[in-house]
Amino acid sequence: MVDSMIDLGAVEVFADAGALHRMMAEVSAFGATPGGGVNRMAATPEEGRARDWLRGWFAAHGFRTLVDPIGNLVGVLDLAGDGAPLVLSGSHLDSQPFGGRFDGAYGVVAACQAALAIRAAGGRPTHNLGVVSWTNEEGARFQPSLVGSSVFAGLLGLQDALRIRDGDGVAIGDALAAIGYRGADSIPHPAAYVELHVECGPELEASGQPLGVMEGWWGALKLRLSFLGAQSHTGPTAMALRRDALRAAGVLIAAIGGLADEAKRDGPEVLYTSVGRLEVEPNSPNVIPGRATLFIELRSPRAEVLAGAETALMAQVAAAAASARVGWRIDSRLYRPSGRFDPGLVALAREIRPEAQRLTTVAAHDAIPLSTLCPAVVVATPSVGGMCHHEAEFTRPEDLEQGLRLLTAMLWRLCNQ
Amino acid sequence: MVDSMIDLGAVEVFADAGALHRMMAEVSAFGATPGGGVNRMAATPEEGRARDWLRGWFAAHGFRTLVDPIGNLVGVLDLAGDGAPLVLSGSHLDSQPFGGRFDGAYGVVAACQAALAIRAAGGRPTHNLGVVSWTNEEGARFQPSLVGSSVFAGLLGLQDALRIRDGDGVAIGDALAAIGYRGADSIPHPAAYVELHVECGPELEASGQPLGVMEGWWGALKLRLSFLGAQSHTGPTAMALRRDALRAAGVLIAAIGGLADEAKRDGPEVLYTSVGRLEVEPNSPNVIPGRATLFIELRSPRAEVLAGAETALMAQVAAAAASARVGWRIDSRLYRPSGRFDPGLVALAREIRPEAQRLTTVAAHDAIPLSTLCPAVVVATPSVGGMCHHEAEFTRPEDLEQGLRLLTAMLWRLCNQ
Repeated sequence: MVDSMIDLGAVEVFADAGALHRMMAEVSAFGATPGGGVNRMAATPEEGRARDWLRGWFAAHGFRTLVDPIGNLVGVLDLAGDGAPLVLSGSHLDSQPFGGRFDGAYGVVAACQAALAIRAAGGRPTHNLGVVSWTNEEGARFQPSLVGSSVFAGLLGLQDALRIRDGDGVAIGDALAAIGYRGADSIPHPAAYVELHVECGPELEASGQPLGVMEGWWGALKLRLSFLGAQSHTGPTAMALRRDALRAAGVLIAAIGGLADEAKRDGPEVLYTSVGRLEVEPNSPNVIPGRATLFIELRSPRAEVLAGAETALMAQVAAAAASARVGWRIDSRLYRPSGRFDPGLVALAREIRPEAQRLTTVAAHDAIPLSTLCPAVVVATPSVGGMCHHEAEFTRPEDLEQGLRLLTAMLWRLCNQ
Repeated sequence: MVDSMIDLGAVEVFADAGALHRMMAEVSAFGATPGGGVNRMAATPEEGRARDWLRGWFAAHGFRTLVDPIGNLVGVLDLAGDGAPLVLSGSHLDSQPFGGRFDGAYGVVAACQAALAIRAAGGRPTHNLGVVSWTNEEGARFQPSLVGSSVFAGLLGLQDALRIRDGDGVAIGDALAAIGYRGADSIPHPAAYVELHVECGPELEASGQPLGVMEGWWGALKLRLSFLGAQSHTGPTAMALRRDALRAAGVLIAAIGGLADEAKRDGPEVLYTSVGRLEVEPNSPNVIPGRATLFIELRSPRAEVLAGAETALMAQVAAAAASARVGWRIDSRLYRPSGRFDPGLVALAREIRPEAQRLTTVAAHDAIPLSTLCPAVVVATPSVGGMCHHEAEFTRPEDLEQGLRLLTAMLWRLCNQ
C-alpha cells in the first residue's frame, strides 16, 4: 500500500516533543498513585476524567469527537474532507491497578501530537486522520481485554460486551453510562491503523535500539475456571470430609507453573503460563473455601504448543479436583490465535527507520482485532528493564520522542498517498 | 464448686421454649441471606441492628445493660443485689460470611430465656446473672477471633485490639463507634461462665445424644504469611524473570494439605490444616501477582504434633518461595495451646444430664479465654450433618429446647449455691 518515497523532513520538524511531554504529565494526573504509576481502570471515575480531558483537548484543537456505543472515543481531523477514507491511530487510556503511566496513554497522546503536526504540514492529504482511545483494553476491571476494539471489529457483539460485569457485578454498559461515555456515534472503518506503544518487554532495551515494529503476536488461551467445594468450619470439619476449593486451586496453580517448565523441552520459553487473579469464597480465615475461581493464561507463538498445554492443563484440573474432592467448571474460554500484522505497514516503518527492531508481541494490543478490518501494526519504544503493568514502568523521554517522530512520519505517509 | 443435689423440676417448667424459637426467628432476620443463613459480620450495620435488638430486649425485660470499650454487650439481672458475684452466660451475635443462624446467636438467646426462667423461679439467689454477646468471636471480618472475650480476660490489650483492621483498612474501634458500641462500662469479672453453643461438628449427631459437654479444646497455630514477588505483565515477562507471589502460594497451599495427610502416621486425624483466606495483589488476570497473603491454620490436640507441623511448614514456605523466586514474611503468628474446661462445671452438666456426651472442641469458643478468669465450660447441642460456617447449618428445634433446659438448670444451680 506504500509505493513511493517521500521527504519527511518538514513533518518531523513540527512534531512537538515538548507538547507530548506536557500532555503525558497532564494525563498521568488522572488516577496518579504515590508510587509514580496510575490506577485508572476502565470506566472508573478516574478514567472518566482522563476521557473528559481528551475530549476537551479534541474540542480545543478542532477535532470532531465521536463516542460509539461501547465507549470508544475518537477525535477526527477532516484533512481530506467529508467522506474521505480514515487513517486511525491511538491506544487506550485505561490502566492496570497500580499500573504504568505510559502503557496506552503514550499511544493516544503521541497520536494527538502527530495529528497536529500533519495538519500543520498542509499539502493535499488523501485521508482524514483520527485519534482513538479504545474501551477496556487492559482487561483488568472487565474481562476479556480489548473489549472496545473487539466490538469495533465485529469480533464481540455489542450487547454481549455491554453485559460484561466487573468483580462487584457492575456491567460495563452501566459503568460507561455513569461516566458519560455510552455514545451513539458510528466510527467509520479505517483504511489503516497504526498504534504506538511502549514495548512492555525486554527485547528493545537489550537490542540497544530506540524503536521496534511488531511483525506479529503470540497466541493466547485464557480460561476462567472454578473449583466448587463445600463451605465449612476449618476447625471441627474432619480432614477426610473436607471439600476444599482453595486446596484444589493451590494444587492446580503449582501444576500450571510446572507446565511452562516442562515446555522448555520444546525450546526456550516456548510457553508462558500464569494465574494472575484468584477469587476465593467466602475468603474467611476459618472457613473452608466453597469456591475458588482461577484466571489462567497460556501463551505461545506455536498453536500446537498451546493445544498440548491445554490438554495437559485439563488433566491437571481433573487431578486437582479429585485430590480435594471438589467439582469444577469452566466459566469462560477465550482463544486468540497467533497472527501477523500488515507486512506493508511493517515495511513502511522500516523504510522510515531501517534500524527499527522486528518484534513479536506476547502482550495483546488493540491493533490485533483491528487487523481483521484493515492493515494494522504496532510500533514500539523501549521499556526500561522490560517492566510493565507496574508503577515503575518507564520509557526514557528521548525514546518517547523517537516514537513520536516515527508515528508522525508513518501517519503522514498514510494520509498523503 | 457444686456440692449438693437440688430439685430443678420447677425451674425447667418455666424455661420458655416458644420464646426461644421466637427470639431465634427475630435475630435471624438481621443479615438474613436467601439461602437461610446470616451474613452478619462483626461491627457491621447488620450486627449493629442485632445488638440494638438485644439491647432493646434487655431494657424491655428489666436487665441492666453494660457495653465495655471493646463493645462486649451485657445485660445483668441483679438477682442477689448490688455487689453480689456474677454468673455469666452467652455467646456472640456476629457470624461468618454466609454463615449459620444458630452459631453464636443460639447461646445468647438461650441465656436470655434461661435468665427469665431463673428470675421467675424466685428463691434467694446468691449470685447475679448476666447475659453477654462478645465482640468479633468469629474472626471473619477482623483477625484474630475471640477479640472481645480475649480483651475482657486480659489476654489482648484494649488498644491493640481497637487498632485491628479489616480487609478494607477499617479499625475495629472505628467500626464499633460507627454502630454505637464503643462503650465505657466496666463488666465485672464473673464467678463462672457457661456457654451454650451448637456443636459445629459431627460427634453429637453420631452419638445419638441431644446434649454434649466440652471437656477441653484442641491447640491451634494461626499464621498470616505473605509471599512478596514483583508485579509485571503476564504476557511479555519471560518465565525465567517472573517473581510470582501466587505461584509460591499455590505450591504452599498444596504442601499444607499434604502435611495433614502425612500426620495420619501419628494417628487418625491428629492434625487439621487449612488455608481459608488468600489475598492476592493486584489480582488482575494479566498481571503477575506481586503479593499473596495466606491465612494458615494448623490444629491438633497434641502440642508436639503442632510443633512438628510448624517446623515442616516453614521448610515448605522456604521451598515454595525459592521455587517462584519470591521473598516471604510472617505477618502474624498466634498460638493457642490446647486446654481443659473446668472439671466442676463439666461434672455439673453431667450430674444434671448424665447422658451428655464428653466432647473436645476443635473450634474455639469465648469460653476458652474466659477459662483464664473463672471456671468456664461449653455445653452443646447437635449440628445436623456436622455442618457449620455455612448457610445450611441447622439444629433441630427439640435439640435447641434440650440445650435451653440444661443451660437453665446449670445457671440456676450456679446462682443458688
